[in-house]
Amino acid sequence: MIDFYFDFVSPFGYFASLRIEALARRHNLGLRWHPILVGVTVMKVMGLPPLFDIPLKGDYVKREVARYQDLFKIALARDPAKPPVTALAASRAMALLSRIDHDAAVQFAHAAYAAYWQEEADLNQPATVAAIAISAGVSASEIDRICGDAAKTALREEMDEAVAKGVFGSPFFLIDGEPFFGVDKLELIEMWLLRER
Amino acid sequence: MIDFYFDFVSPFGYFASLRIEALARRHNLGLRWHPILVGVTVMKVMGLPPLFDIPLKGDYVKREVARYQDLFKIALARDPAKPPVTALAASRAMALLSRIDHDAAVQFAHAAYAAYWQEEADLNQPATVAAIAISAGVSASEIDRICGDAAKTALREEMDEAVAKGVFGSPFFLIDGEPFFGVDKLELIEMWLLRER
Repeated sequence: MIDFYFDFVSPFGYFASLRIEALARRHNLGLRWHPILVGVTVMKVMGLPPLFDIPLKGDYVKREVARYQDLFKIALARDPAKPPVTALAASRAMALLSRIDHDAAVQFAHAAYAAYWQEEADLNQPATVAAIAISAGVSASEIDRICGDAAKTALREEMDEAVAKGVFGSPFFLIDGEPFFGVDKLELIEMWLLRER
Repeated sequence: MIDFYFDFVSPFGYFASLRIEALARRHNLGLRWHPILVGVTVMKVMGLPPLFDIPLKGDYVKREVARYQDLFKIALARDPAKPPVTALAASRAMALLSRIDHDAAVQFAHAAYAAYWQEEADLNQPATVAAIAISAGVSASEIDRICGDAAKTALREEMDEAVAKGVFGSPFFLIDGEPFFGVDKLELIEMWLLRER
């Protein structure tokens, strides 16, 4: 089983979202998607500044994002160096929707990621989130719920569980409990899955 | 040309030191080794705490080191979670030696890495560093120099240049100027070198 943790505002999370399903299929592994807010784990739990604000590393990461687009032929419309707009509403919706109907939640996650990175959508606006959910096939009767208080609780619980399991960044993968941080681990994960045991 | 930056106390730098020469040969690239002190870049320049002290990430990195040993069949005798003993003397010697005779310096680097990680040698002791240098074929007449003031200056210059180029961690690779941080980039580097241009 692969548990895939991601933040909608993380470009590397977006890149991983485009590759993780093929990896899971190649290895016959189940896949569960978990929204997290990296601002909470990184800043509050770890006590670190935002990635782009760290001297040397901030500039390096910008270059990494550009190179990844180039190598994997994925162009981002949104400039990753622009300060992120928190995706709180979309993350809450995702947390609740994944409990109700995980397949629909995955469709929603793909649509929300594309909206943020390709159309610069504001994933903190309930109306935007509702429109994305409807376009992803969520029934109109569910919309109120995934934009309401139950969704707030679902995300809080999801985050607490993630931190308890040691998850701290985006993307982060737990594969039968083994932790892997970063989109650059996808190649290592393949090696690890194919290792002699 | 590959510029390879490493800290002797970095387990991932050690792992990279065992793989980088084969990568350079496969791609017909020159290779230059550069000692750096990550304590200086990470703590002084970037303002971050030591990696193992960061909540969640510290524990994760310990697990990553264990997994890497397993996957690549490299066993470390020294516990990577033990606080590092700065490798100042060895790094100074390496900085000067690499200007005098780069091939000898690479032999020295391999020997010093093995001494630290396999025999828990103290790379901040000039006598230990001198013994490693002699075992790596450095002539006795050079020893005083690589343990003296010129070596101090050489390391300071090496570090200033590295930071000016955006280098901040170990291992770090500049390949014709393109920056790559972390041993997990070795697979990505292969893809990048083989990309369509």
